[in-house]
Amino acid sequence: MSAEIPIVRNVLEANDRIATQLKEIFREKNILCLNLMSSPGAGKTSLLERTLTDLRDEFRMAVIEGDLQTDNDAKRVAATGAKAVQINTEGGCHLDSGQILDSLKSFDLDELDILFVENVGNLVCPAEFDVGEDHKITLLSVTEGDDKPEKYPFMFHISSVMLLNKVDLLPYVDFDLESATAHARKLNKDILVLPISCRNGDNLDQWYDWLRKARESKK
Amino acid sequence: MSAEIPIVRNVLEANDRIATQLKEIFREKNILCLNLMSSPGAGKTSLLERTLTDLRDEFRMAVIEGDLQTDNDAKRVAATGAKAVQINTEGGCHLDSGQILDSLKSFDLDELDILFVENVGNLVCPAEFDVGEDHKITLLSVTEGDDKPEKYPFMFHISSVMLLNKVDLLPYVDFDLESATAHARKLNKDILVLPISCRNGDNLDQWYDWLRKARESKK
Repeated sequence: MSAEIPIVRNVLEANDRIATQLKEIFREKNILCLNLMSSPGAGKTSLLERTLTDLRDEFRMAVIEGDLQTDNDAKRVAATGAKAVQINTEGGCHLDSGQILDSLKSFDLDELDILFVENVGNLVCPAEFDVGEDHKITLLSVTEGDDKPEKYPFMFHISSVMLLNKVDLLPYVDFDLESATAHARKLNKDILVLPISCRNGDNLDQWYDWLRKARESKK
Repeated sequence: MSAEIPIVRNVLEANDRIATQLKEIFREKNILCLNLMSSPGAGKTSLLERTLTDLRDEFRMAVIEGDLQTDNDAKRVAATGAKAVQINTEGGCHLDSGQILDSLKSFDLDELDILFVENVGNLVCPAEFDVGEDHKITLLSVTEGDDKPEKYPFMFHISSVMLLNKVDLLPYVDFDLESATAHARKLNKDILVLPISCRNGDNLDQWYDWLRKARESKK
């Protein structure tokens, strides 16, 4: 199926052109944009519920939600009081920059400090599609196994932060934190690795510190 | 990006042509072929380790392993004594029928009762690519959340069996078995739902019974 390769390249190039346009918009409007990616069920929406609640007096935040179907996640996020827009990809395995550009119409960009993009739950395809973000953030649940950075290298190679979520379940699963961290650092020596629990709040203060610094360095 | 739609259709049609060829081979050689799919880390390899060990005196079994990188899973499977072939997709988000056809050269098809295809860990893309299997089997770990059938409907719509794995972790997570089952059945009224634990062996006897019946009805 080598005939498809030039087409794939064209799709990626078209995506990158709009992503460049998005970066310009985010720079002008001084908005920090973060692209959250993970396998299904690793805790992206739970992280957002915590973050939007705990930092609501500090930043003006909004969310673009990507899912194949349902607006469940947008509803969960909106319950925190933050503005949320749902994109249903109808089977599509990632968000692309064109969808993000369209969604920006729903927000007042002059009233926004941080825009979170919650990508489709998928540890493969979203990694290839830049959506104009300042940083890619990957969540890995400890229930998925410590071998995932090695087996899905591209996602970890391009992420600024790996959040190891659900550490409250560590006593009940086999997960070697040091091995997962070492493999992620082999792919990306600068990646920040933060073990967290969105269930009980463990180490979220470190995630918030990172967010503050990322926001500060954007200004 | 509507220009890509005809190309996508061509790719799927090419895949389906080879899948039809594979079905014919499996029929002639009387091999039951099962396509195992799930999110990363839901327990496909653990299920195979158990199954290949527990039924080794009953069936002649082999595995085709799909991963972006590494041959870790093929090694785990080979440690049970079963023949295993590893496909590295180098970033590709699913296995296709051409890769399966190529891999068949590694096996003596006259000495095989059941062929397992362990697909790339991804709850989206593998659903669209028939690899000539008799049944699609989806694993869902209870740590991923009970909303996944509703949010990733296509995968559950086309699967004969949904294995709800890691039920040993049910006391520590919020997962409504009835809700997950109801949503899966709404998408596919005939889907068999089996709560299992590959860690402690819970209910694997029911999975083995299903395998025996599937093998029997193939003959």
